[in-house]
Amino acid sequence: MKIEILSIGNEVVYGDIVNTNAAWLSQELTSQGFEVLRHLTIADNEAQITEALLEAPRRVDAVLVTGGLGPTVDDFTLEIAGKIFGRPLQKNAGVMAQLETFYTARKRVMTPNQEKQAMVPEGAEVFLNPVGSAPGVRLEFQGVQYFFFPGVPKEMKQIFKDSILPWLLSHRSAAAFHEAKLLRCFGAEEAKLDALVQPLLKDRVMLGNAKVAFRVKFPEIFIKISVSGSSQEEARRELERAASKVEEAVQEYLYGEHEETLEAVVGRLLRERGLTLSLAESCTGGQIADRITNVPGSSEYFKGGVVAYSNDLKVSLLGVQPETLEKFGAVSRETALEMAKAARGRFGSDIALSVTGIAGPGGGSNEKPVGTFHMALATAKGTEEKNFYFPIDRERFKRLVSSVALNWIRKTLARN
Amino acid sequence: MKIEILSIGNEVVYGDIVNTNAAWLSQELTSQGFEVLRHLTIADNEAQITEALLEAPRRVDAVLVTGGLGPTVDDFTLEIAGKIFGRPLQKNAGVMAQLETFYTARKRVMTPNQEKQAMVPEGAEVFLNPVGSAPGVRLEFQGVQYFFFPGVPKEMKQIFKDSILPWLLSHRSAAAFHEAKLLRCFGAEEAKLDALVQPLLKDRVMLGNAKVAFRVKFPEIFIKISVSGSSQEEARRELERAASKVEEAVQEYLYGEHEETLEAVVGRLLRERGLTLSLAESCTGGQIADRITNVPGSSEYFKGGVVAYSNDLKVSLLGVQPETLEKFGAVSRETALEMAKAARGRFGSDIALSVTGIAGPGGGSNEKPVGTFHMALATAKGTEEKNFYFPIDRERFKRLVSSVALNWIRKTLARN
Repeated sequence: MKIEILSIGNEVVYGDIVNTNAAWLSQELTSQGFEVLRHLTIADNEAQITEALLEAPRRVDAVLVTGGLGPTVDDFTLEIAGKIFGRPLQKNAGVMAQLETFYTARKRVMTPNQEKQAMVPEGAEVFLNPVGSAPGVRLEFQGVQYFFFPGVPKEMKQIFKDSILPWLLSHRSAAAFHEAKLLRCFGAEEAKLDALVQPLLKDRVMLGNAKVAFRVKFPEIFIKISVSGSSQEEARRELERAASKVEEAVQEYLYGEHEETLEAVVGRLLRERGLTLSLAESCTGGQIADRITNVPGSSEYFKGGVVAYSNDLKVSLLGVQPETLEKFGAVSRETALEMAKAARGRFGSDIALSVTGIAGPGGGSNEKPVGTFHMALATAKGTEEKNFYFPIDRERFKRLVSSVALNWIRKTLARN
Repeated sequence: MKIEILSIGNEVVYGDIVNTNAAWLSQELTSQGFEVLRHLTIADNEAQITEALLEAPRRVDAVLVTGGLGPTVDDFTLEIAGKIFGRPLQKNAGVMAQLETFYTARKRVMTPNQEKQAMVPEGAEVFLNPVGSAPGVRLEFQGVQYFFFPGVPKEMKQIFKDSILPWLLSHRSAAAFHEAKLLRCFGAEEAKLDALVQPLLKDRVMLGNAKVAFRVKFPEIFIKISVSGSSQEEARRELERAASKVEEAVQEYLYGEHEETLEAVVGRLLRERGLTLSLAESCTGGQIADRITNVPGSSEYFKGGVVAYSNDLKVSLLGVQPETLEKFGAVSRETALEMAKAARGRFGSDIALSVTGIAGPGGGSNEKPVGTFHMALATAKGTEEKNFYFPIDRERFKRLVSSVALNWIRKTLARN
């Protein structure tokens, strides 16, 4: 089944918002084995909407149309569809009842504009909106299925999952089953991982029909493996076989699967081992703590941390020796070691991590250029130090350093 | 001049990456007064590329084509263009020289695949790529200008700014000048700001030809005002006039302009007043410190902070009285006030802010449900407390609370 994604809205075509809807829908559809042929984005303009709707049957079997269904004057997608498909709009009792519930729950009185959302083309199938006001609608014309639904991402996703995807799955001709797995990697560039996976791809016997795609989300790389099969069992078996080969190839850089973030893996390992963590951050400015506490339940294993940006605070809060700072400087192996040891002692945690470095653009020197950083990890077994040099812009530096630090904690925990 | 943006690439149409290129190009073009008619995204597929290129003259005056210009086998956009426009590919000496410099600088030997990037259609204008390998190319066919350039965002932006935009500006018929201003607001929903601006839009005398667009970037709202004029002076004058009206209407929520973030405004005000800041965070988990330290030069005014996630640390690091925690709880007016006062004293800063709350999903109670938080601000004049209730998901809660806190610091500094 070939599908087109049509996004309607001035704010999208003028670039005021990025079209994340099309990417999300494409991923969902592609992972189920549907072929997405194209994305088209146009303005709230009758001539353009008409042309786009009438052209679709030349190319595809289904069109997913988002946007232009709300209560304002700019929202006229269904009026146009009704006109060109010869299906006059009618008030739908089910939608009216749902709208009344929706506005009453929000203590608002429905205006005639809002009532307009209950007008749907004659003969259309209606999908009620469980999280908003305007419903989704399915219409058939010249053998093509048109699905109209709101462009608000939350509503778009809900109606797609609840109604549109099930409809598509139950109406496709050949029953094919699709499975996919996302591998999350850190510590190598895309080219490096690609070189590790390429030999497998050349030998099709090894990976079967599996497709492998790379996606960069700085500083991480995600590898998506998708397979299809004639039964769910076969697809799962094929996925397991292909995924295990890829996992073996990238083992050194693989930290997790699917939605589990680096900070979530660290949290899971801490919880499994019954250990607690504290942090002494300088150049990352609290970002490691921020990421650790993005994980629900992190208060169970995270004691807290210090953002010791000034030397004064490194001394007064952490107890770093003034002589160490004077002799070796704030960005040094010695200071990093003292920060980690002091944090572990003062905060009473099993593990403590420290980071000190120069994020730039100012503050560098010939000896310690911008991009230099030291980090240390204190555990019951002792304290270790590592240092790196990443001369990149400030925000990417902070992101990369916080990931390097989290990955170090992860690897240390995984070994024990 | 009407323009279409054509994005070519399997990774985009299958949703593995979000098409930020189209939004970026649209914003640039729209702000210069060009009309972007549509975005089309298709796969690396000869039939689809051919159809898209041949259809454009029916609709637009120029097509911006990104993707499919690199060294790999999937990159064949120019081959197809050369074929359908009757312009055989030829090796371009200028591009060859630039490629040699590019690969030599990276200590790599050019492969035949990489040499392919020097093959351009006969009669095409070439735009060298200052930050990558594949060049940009301009071709005219049936009165339409086709601009082909790489899809890698950094290269795409550079070639657009250096070569394509100047070409378009110098070739449009009516000389029109465009100016735009971005107003950054916080503290009101889009509907509220819209209601404040609508009366101005209804009275066109007030805003002239100015266009006003809203853009939500949770939890902030940006308002973009764009005007055109027959001279740059006129455009600037009109923008100033329209912007001052909008600014007046949204004054209460307006915190900055253009690229200046909330944390950058706070930093600028601290620097202007010669004041220092420290933080005592609980439920925001270091995010306020992370944002403050995203601003280059923040070490001048930011002393540091504590992420006191556990009660132990609130006592040992900050000096909150155990009795206060016992009597009122960690999430209370009293604890917030003590945290801010203690941070100001211990860290020796002019201003100290504290935040304590329940980010959820666990940890709530009937009396203090998930979404409750207290914050306090200690200055030379004394310590104040505020509290709110935002029952939203954990990550949005942290983002919203950190923005509320930064905005409070901003307003306090702006008054003094």
